[in-house]
Amino acid sequence: MPTGLVTLTTDFGVSDHYIGAIKGVIYRINPQAHVVDISNSVNSFDILDGAITIAQTYHYFPSDTLHLVIVDPGVGTQRRPILAVTEKHRFLAPDNGVLSLVYEREERLSVRHVTSEHYYLQPVSQTFHGRDIFAACAGWLSKGVEVGKFGEEVTDFVRFAAPKPKEISANAFKGVILKTDKFGNLITNFTVKDVPRLFEATPPRFKFVIAGKEVNIMRSAYAQGMHNEVFCIVGSMGFLELACNRNAASRVLPADRGTEVTLHVEAASAGGAAPSAASSSS
Amino acid sequence: MPTGLVTLTTDFGVSDHYIGAIKGVIYRINPQAHVVDISNSVNSFDILDGAITIAQTYHYFPSDTLHLVIVDPGVGTQRRPILAVTEKHRFLAPDNGVLSLVYEREERLSVRHVTSEHYYLQPVSQTFHGRDIFAACAGWLSKGVEVGKFGEEVTDFVRFAAPKPKEISANAFKGVILKTDKFGNLITNFTVKDVPRLFEATPPRFKFVIAGKEVNIMRSAYAQGMHNEVFCIVGSMGFLELACNRNAASRVLPADRGTEVTLHVEAASAGGAAPSAASSSS
Amino acid sequence: MPTGLVTLTTDFGVSDHYIGAIKGVIYRINPQAHVVDISNSVNSFDILDGAITIAQTYHYFPSDTLHLVIVDPGVGTQRRPILAVTEKHRFLAPDNGVLSLVYEREERLSVRHVTSEHYYLQPVSQTFHGRDIFAACAGWLSKGVEVGKFGEEVTDFVRFAAPKPKEISANAFKGVILKTDKFGNLITNFTVKDVPRLFEATPPRFKFVIAGKEVNIMRSAYAQGMHNEVFCIVGSMGFLELACNRNAASRVLPADRGTEVTLHVEAASAGGAAPSAASSSS
Repeated sequence: MPTGLVTLTTDFGVSDHYIGAIKGVIYRINPQAHVVDISNSVNSFDILDGAITIAQTYHYFPSDTLHLVIVDPGVGTQRRPILAVTEKHRFLAPDNGVLSLVYEREERLSVRHVTSEHYYLQPVSQTFHGRDIFAACAGWLSKGVEVGKFGEEVTDFVRFAAPKPKEISANAFKGVILKTDKFGNLITNFTVKDVPRLFEATPPRFKFVIAGKEVNIMRSAYAQGMHNEVFCIVGSMGFLELACNRNAASRVLPADRGTEVTLHVEAASAGGAAPSAASSSS
Repeated sequence: MPTGLVTLTTDFGVSDHYIGAIKGVIYRINPQAHVVDISNSVNSFDILDGAITIAQTYHYFPSDTLHLVIVDPGVGTQRRPILAVTEKHRFLAPDNGVLSLVYEREERLSVRHVTSEHYYLQPVSQTFHGRDIFAACAGWLSKGVEVGKFGEEVTDFVRFAAPKPKEISANAFKGVILKTDKFGNLITNFTVKDVPRLFEATPPRFKFVIAGKEVNIMRSAYAQGMHNEVFCIVGSMGFLELACNRNAASRVLPADRGTEVTLHVEAASAGGAAPSAASSSS
Repeated sequence: MPTGLVTLTTDFGVSDHYIGAIKGVIYRINPQAHVVDISNSVNSFDILDGAITIAQTYHYFPSDTLHLVIVDPGVGTQRRPILAVTEKHRFLAPDNGVLSLVYEREERLSVRHVTSEHYYLQPVSQTFHGRDIFAACAGWLSKGVEVGKFGEEVTDFVRFAAPKPKEISANAFKGVILKTDKFGNLITNFTVKDVPRLFEATPPRFKFVIAGKEVNIMRSAYAQGMHNEVFCIVGSMGFLELACNRNAASRVLPADRGTEVTLHVEAASAGGAAPSAASSSS
């Protein structure tokens, strides 16, 4: 028995009829479904933002949950609708890379090109496949129709690598702000694994340079921050964040999605010269 | 057996307690209900925006779904609460025209003036009938109470006609932007039926004049648009939209809900003079 | 049998993955749960705003509903996670006062310090207890685990008094705007009980002074207001509001959360001098 859980991760917003139409189509096909909003406020047209949102959430849901992930600026073109199946989860999405960060987390994966038009809502518009194709197929899938009935497996599906920090010189790395969250936390693309030395028992001094400013303090809880101090913290997504206690770091700096960030870490040699940032931060 | 599905289309927003109170009242009366948000971010006080949102969504839901549609600037005055029943759906709303575009789509329709105060939450406030009257009645209706028990049928319910484009001279029509969606698409009030010539095998040249600019390109998918080009497209609502590929047409032009738009279509006669717009667009 | 209803009142927003992760954790532990959004758009870090939102809604829900209330700027510090149980409801929240206005409404109340780590998601982050502690415990609670299993009762839980108006001179009171709602209504902290004379059969003249302007008209329905007139009305929360018919009083004045407001009421003596406000308002 399928769980009937269907999650929505889309850029359709909450002010229009789009999400209502999608929910209606799912419930009409499967009144036993249970549609759960993850987020419908993904940045418009922003495939990376959608990819991050679903990758940060799907694995918390029960096995056999069906995830609709619709950030679809290419609707109406040749881009394919796909059905991806991992060991425990199922995903319906446009084949534009929006599942890339899911693929990164999963060893076992099959991806099908959805072609069974008899499951579509008719007629199919050229501007709203979220309703006409994805929601309709979600209704049937959540009702128990087998994945094999939706189309043939493909291997040339679109995937991109998440942007990783790059070493630009000895002890210096260039990264980027992946997103600004609702609190104004600036999520960088640095993970703990990218800079393990920062988390040793006696970590070296460091500085993030961003928007012409320096951030050289590490905190382990948001509330440790001083008034209007921007600090670095390991966020719940696994990325280093630049944050501010009870304030928006994005406004204090200011910075936003796409802003470049450079990380300088003090050389390992104890006798080595400290980077200027570390010096100036004392 | 009722489905228990109750949808919400309101202007109460998502930042306050209003929607929570409404959901609570429904679930307390009928814990088996299943409340589904269509949109609670209808423009404040904007009856037309609410009318469009429900008209674009309700028919996708299963038969016997109950739709709450609450855009209610007249709360506390003599405006009546109504219960409208169509062949397949039921609606609770203030009698201010917010169901007008539903009425347009339905041949069989009965509308009742809700007067059975024993179904209301007591005491009834003068400022929040969404909670005290509409949610309470929704709880009882979704639990299976018959529509006839809520009040007598009326025929003088409020309805308005959706604003239609008007012919202002030979081959020229005046219309309006009905709404701007989350992507910045400008939804006009022109449908394909209003200007069928634009969709013939060999369509005439045309131009929309809006905010001092001209739009004279037709696309069939958003992704066909050039960088920052504003074009016309048949949107999923059935209206012509002015849109931009991966950008907000509303900002590129700029324009918004209520902006007037004039459509000029090239005269049918092959030998006729092209309108200046068509000339200048080549 | 528990109802399985779990409500969310948080400041996590709707644009990120936070709410999706919380819902996923709850549903994985208890696929029979039914998560209902009250509001996830509480002002960031604003404990009073969260306290108001839950206090205005929880009592409408069925008995045994479980309410998650997460406005948690102190996450990762020594602040305790608590489980509060009233006669009919249960609450999971950080112990920072966000339940203060619930406590005010309830005579019977027990509060437990949640310490049973085997119910937590492991590992527990220092930045997202909403997911790792509160959602996980909500899953188990909604599944029927007894409250006593989550930790010992405490009596030194944090609670604050809602800001009350103060009498500053004969017939003059100082208050504050508690919040601005989606319609731009300015919710003051005055209740009918604070100024009963205003609601007598023959009420005295009065004026609210706010942002350098005066408001001296009482209305009983929003639609009674004249064009762009700011008036006072008893709102559905039980507080006096400064409102405007089909417009945002917060923009007309302008004012916002935290703005001070002074209320002057005409002296009771019929022969007494009217306050200047009342005079100037005629």
